Amino acid sequence: MEELKKYVSVKDEDHFYHQGAVELLIFNFLLILTILTIWLFKNHRFRFLHETGGAMLYGLLMGLIIRYVTKSPDVESGTVYECEKLKSGPSTLLINITNQVYEYQYKREISHHNVNGHQGNAMLQKMTFDPSIFFNILLPPIIFHAGYSLKKRHFFRNLGSILTYAFLGTAISCIVIGLIMYGFVKAMVHLGQLKQREFHFTDCLFFGSLMSATDPVTVLAIFHELNVDTDLYTLLFGESVLNDAVAIVLTHSISIYSPKENPNAFDASAFFQSVGNFLGIFAGSFAMGSSYAVVTALISFMHLTKFTKLCEFPMLETGLFFLLSWSAFLSAEAAGLTGIVAVLFCGVTQAHYTYNNLSPDSKMRTKQLFEFMNFLAENVIFCYMGLALFTFQNHIFNPLFIFGALVAVFVARASNIYPLSFLLNLGRKQKIPRNFQHMMMFSGLRGAIAFALAIRDTDSQPKQMMFSTALLIVFFTVWVFGGGTTPMLSWLQIRVGIDPDEDLKAKAASQSASNLEKNTTKAETAWLFRIWYGFDHRYLKPLLTHAGPPLTSTLPGWCNPVARLLTSPSAYGDQLKDGDTDYIITNDELTENYEPSAHIPVPAQDNTGSIQATGKEDIQAGDLGLGGYKLQLQHTACQPQKNSLA
Amino acid sequence: MEELKKYVSVKDEDHFYHQGAVELLIFNFLLILTILTIWLFKNHRFRFLHETGGAMLYGLLMGLIIRYVTKSPDVESGTVYECEKLKSGPSTLLINITNQVYEYQYKREISHHNVNGHQGNAMLQKMTFDPSIFFNILLPPIIFHAGYSLKKRHFFRNLGSILTYAFLGTAISCIVIGLIMYGFVKAMVHLGQLKQREFHFTDCLFFGSLMSATDPVTVLAIFHELNVDTDLYTLLFGESVLNDAVAIVLTHSISIYSPKENPNAFDASAFFQSVGNFLGIFAGSFAMGSSYAVVTALISFMHLTKFTKLCEFPMLETGLFFLLSWSAFLSAEAAGLTGIVAVLFCGVTQAHYTYNNLSPDSKMRTKQLFEFMNFLAENVIFCYMGLALFTFQNHIFNPLFIFGALVAVFVARASNIYPLSFLLNLGRKQKIPRNFQHMMMFSGLRGAIAFALAIRDTDSQPKQMMFSTALLIVFFTVWVFGGGTTPMLSWLQIRVGIDPDEDLKAKAASQSASNLEKNTTKAETAWLFRIWYGFDHRYLKPLLTHAGPPLTSTLPGWCNPVARLLTSPSAYGDQLKDGDTDYIITNDELTENYEPSAHIPVPAQDNTGSIQATGKEDIQAGDLGLGGYKLQLQHTACQPQKNSLA
Repeated sequence: MEELKKYVSVKDEDHFYHQGAVELLIFNFLLILTILTIWLFKNHRFRFLHETGGAMLYGLLMGLIIRYVTKSPDVESGTVYECEKLKSGPSTLLINITNQVYEYQYKREISHHNVNGHQGNAMLQKMTFDPSIFFNILLPPIIFHAGYSLKKRHFFRNLGSILTYAFLGTAISCIVIGLIMYGFVKAMVHLGQLKQREFHFTDCLFFGSLMSATDPVTVLAIFHELNVDTDLYTLLFGESVLNDAVAIVLTHSISIYSPKENPNAFDASAFFQSVGNFLGIFAGSFAMGSSYAVVTALISFMHLTKFTKLCEFPMLETGLFFLLSWSAFLSAEAAGLTGIVAVLFCGVTQAHYTYNNLSPDSKMRTKQLFEFMNFLAENVIFCYMGLALFTFQNHIFNPLFIFGALVAVFVARASNIYPLSFLLNLGRKQKIPRNFQHMMMFSGLRGAIAFALAIRDTDSQPKQMMFSTALLIVFFTVWVFGGGTTPMLSWLQIRVGIDPDEDLKAKAASQSASNLEKNTTKAETAWLFRIWYGFDHRYLKPLLTHAGPPLTSTLPGWCNPVARLLTSPSAYGDQLKDGDTDYIITNDELTENYEPSAHIPVPAQDNTGSIQATGKEDIQAGDLGLGGYKLQLQHTACQPQKNSLA
Repeated sequence: MEELKKYVSVKDEDHFYHQGAVELLIFNFLLILTILTIWLFKNHRFRFLHETGGAMLYGLLMGLIIRYVTKSPDVESGTVYECEKLKSGPSTLLINITNQVYEYQYKREISHHNVNGHQGNAMLQKMTFDPSIFFNILLPPIIFHAGYSLKKRHFFRNLGSILTYAFLGTAISCIVIGLIMYGFVKAMVHLGQLKQREFHFTDCLFFGSLMSATDPVTVLAIFHELNVDTDLYTLLFGESVLNDAVAIVLTHSISIYSPKENPNAFDASAFFQSVGNFLGIFAGSFAMGSSYAVVTALISFMHLTKFTKLCEFPMLETGLFFLLSWSAFLSAEAAGLTGIVAVLFCGVTQAHYTYNNLSPDSKMRTKQLFEFMNFLAENVIFCYMGLALFTFQNHIFNPLFIFGALVAVFVARASNIYPLSFLLNLGRKQKIPRNFQHMMMFSGLRGAIAFALAIRDTDSQPKQMMFSTALLIVFFTVWVFGGGTTPMLSWLQIRVGIDPDEDLKAKAASQSASNLEKNTTKAETAWLFRIWYGFDHRYLKPLLTHAGPPLTSTLPGWCNPVARLLTSPSAYGDQLKDGDTDYIITNDELTENYEPSAHIPVPAQDNTGSIQATGKEDIQAGDLGLGGYKLQLQHTACQPQKNSLA
């Protein structure tokens, strides 16, 4: 008898293991299907469905099958049991059922109105995974990869415009969506579809902030494939990366906005507290991410110089790089900051410093590893979005709300792109043309971040309505706008097939004449950028990488002993040999690595001349969205005695 | 008020997310520490602590800190609540506590005696992860990597011996441990430390089977680093890989062994059913794993030939490879078979066929990806083992049982290695010397698999005692034996610093004289191997890869239209150009890739001669543990008219 009981218990447990396997297998199967489809499409140069769109479609079909084909054996799960002895929900609950103790783990709080939705199907519940998996495991590689693969040169050329779109644009978008939705909510209350006090203005703003995170991954993939104008690509990519960060912090700040009395009235102190929260969280996350990257750079730098053997262990190097970057995310989350922002800036900083210290093998390994993880994570998320339409059990689809959200999203995008582009064009020499603006307007797709933010909290009815609506908007934008990218490009007559480096040079050349006049008058405006640039080039780069001039030449004379200690022997060699060449090559290295097709034509004979020109162009190009200023890059290595900036 | 409540709820939820981040951060931190330590050790050529030992040590320290430093805020968790309304434990439980409904998820069944152990610390509970994570996520990459990186040539040279050690040896080990433990259990009952009917003979056998999975990763790493004799390396590696598979299936079969009446009496029908289960599960898993690999090979083959563009998308290729290999594991688990066995043979088959079809970029990507995943997964498991000593809450340490297990493990290893080596040496020409046998005896470390099998079921007291004991044995063997490998090698006077290919040639040359005489008499004994070899070389290799002769030359004449369809155009070209060269190079390719230091000296001038010699040697070397037989490899490409085997 006892033996038989054990037998049954083992069987039961096996059943549980197999369940986990079945769910993972479903995801694997969906991803395999997606890859095969995409591969077929790529072969036939069919660009109307991107892999993410395909993943979503297969997810949708699978969700439909799971929902309507599998049975629901779990009859008990809809019933609510009373427990008078407990005061609050403990994290683990031991329950004695017919003389057998079972352990239950706390999952979440459920609103009373959702209880009926729980007469579910065990399979559906198992296919729904914990939102913290999105945040802790699936999103970090995507965001890190975005930061790591940023084309720095083009990014810094357009930094001012990108920052404007990301910060100002996202704020505008959030407020516009919030206001429009508040109007629709009022209308819904009027029509009796909603109760009076259920949906506050802060909820509308919350929805606005989460819907402001754009994710034009489909569009960018097509841009990349067709070699669309690099400025357009960079503007869109930079905007979408930073705007995710801004939208996440904004959502966080709004969710902890707590006016003292009437939630609808404006409370100035609470408002300013929210603004303070926003700035604090953003700055803190930025600092957290960058410092992890600096630690990685220092470790990898130490490896290379003091203990020269690390290049023999690319595995350890790659492992350390991976773990420290992920730790940046996790530490920020653990500290109550925003991990996504931390991991984004960690990626950017890693690419700027650490990448230069890695052994050639590790450079390739890290690049391929993050590329692969990005690919998998992205497709898993889009599959899951497809699944969620049918497997999520508490959808609330309100036609008026959905219609309102669609309108709001487009109006908000328009009031972000067009006015800001107009303002930016006042300052920019290289104007953002009308067709680029239309393309940016068109590329306002919503994706993984909006979904992840919406699924994080689906307890109350307003939040469920937001989640269902966000999901539909993601479907709509990814399929309709993602599929329409290629026709739109040709309709707007945007140039394709451009070599990004040739393009940059041509633009720089055409600007140089007008630049020279403005240099002296406007040079002060870009002082912050210039100081940072000089500081980075003269102190940080030499300290953290092998690029840049040796510290002995940049630090004052009395620091020489320290400087000598901190400078790697190879820096001297490289520096004395190549002068500024090394710096420029280092700066371009990442760009080159990410664009195998781009060949930078450096004539071998006239080396110093052409390189100095490229160097200058690089700095001239560093506009802050307000124009182009020539930065007086001093050739520190060649003239070590003249290198004071002030 | 309502707003305030929302505020609190968001805060709470944030708290939950951060918790997940904190736990992951702890693991990251441990892994970073491990990597830095190992890197330091490697630089100083300090070989007494392998990375897994280091990971375990850091895990132990962290477990100690978590256990004794963090407070236990969760007072409720030790209490058991009665629930009269429920008949069985549903997978989700909704409970109304002070007018708020909470959702709880089923975790596991708890024996009454464990309830007191649950007055735990929430942190400890959170650090304890679900055993299914081990099985579904951490083990597959380790086992796949073992299969994928198998040095096929050396493996097949020693196949017979390896199979003997793995199947017969594991069975012996299981029975010996079971018998010794049964003796100790009887003694414990006699001393009153255990109740009469608590611990059956099947439980002892269960313990025996799980303790039979050896994991000499530490020893193998040192062997690899020091270039120890390749035969010893291969014997040990092959044995440990296959023996994991055997031990897992054995554990599974024993756990579902269910005699009708008295569990202690021998029930012949149940016993044979168990043997049948073992064979069925093993064969089924083998078939499942291989067929996934064959599908992958076919897809990658199709990619290369029919649609030549896939090499442009190494990401898709790598993704597909990764997902299909993982699916082999998950499908086997979902079908009630053993995923570990499936993924092991999937890895071997992928290396044999698919690897040859991949683009050079994908070859490197897959190799590095699996290497990296293996590295991470292994260290996570060993960290977790260290943690588990202090964080697992139901340890039962019984000194007598632990002492008995230690004795049993060593006696079992001795009665596995020495008698089987003696028997094998009767047949082997290349004898297994005495010092190799001692080294194999010494390398009987226990590791990840034993731990994973033990943690899978820790509900009853016997199982908990087994888990605690297994954990201690892992610690003991990894630290003591792992640390003692280098002294042991020099004490046993085992040669190090051997170039594996030179070694193979020297051995083959010394054998060739004695071989030639035995060829004709013993050739029939190896008929199974020969038929498989011929079939593989003439039909499977050409069908699934670009190696081997074109199918048009190996299939009968009337199959020509089909053969032409199935053969890739490149196979013709390569084949006609190189003859057998291609085959041999393909066979060696993986070996070469995994040993960057090994240079195979192929003189460029006398190409055909030397290569044909290598080819023959390769086949001569294919002993089945019973001797060495020369296999008449027919040069099919050169003589397409003579190639009928029968």
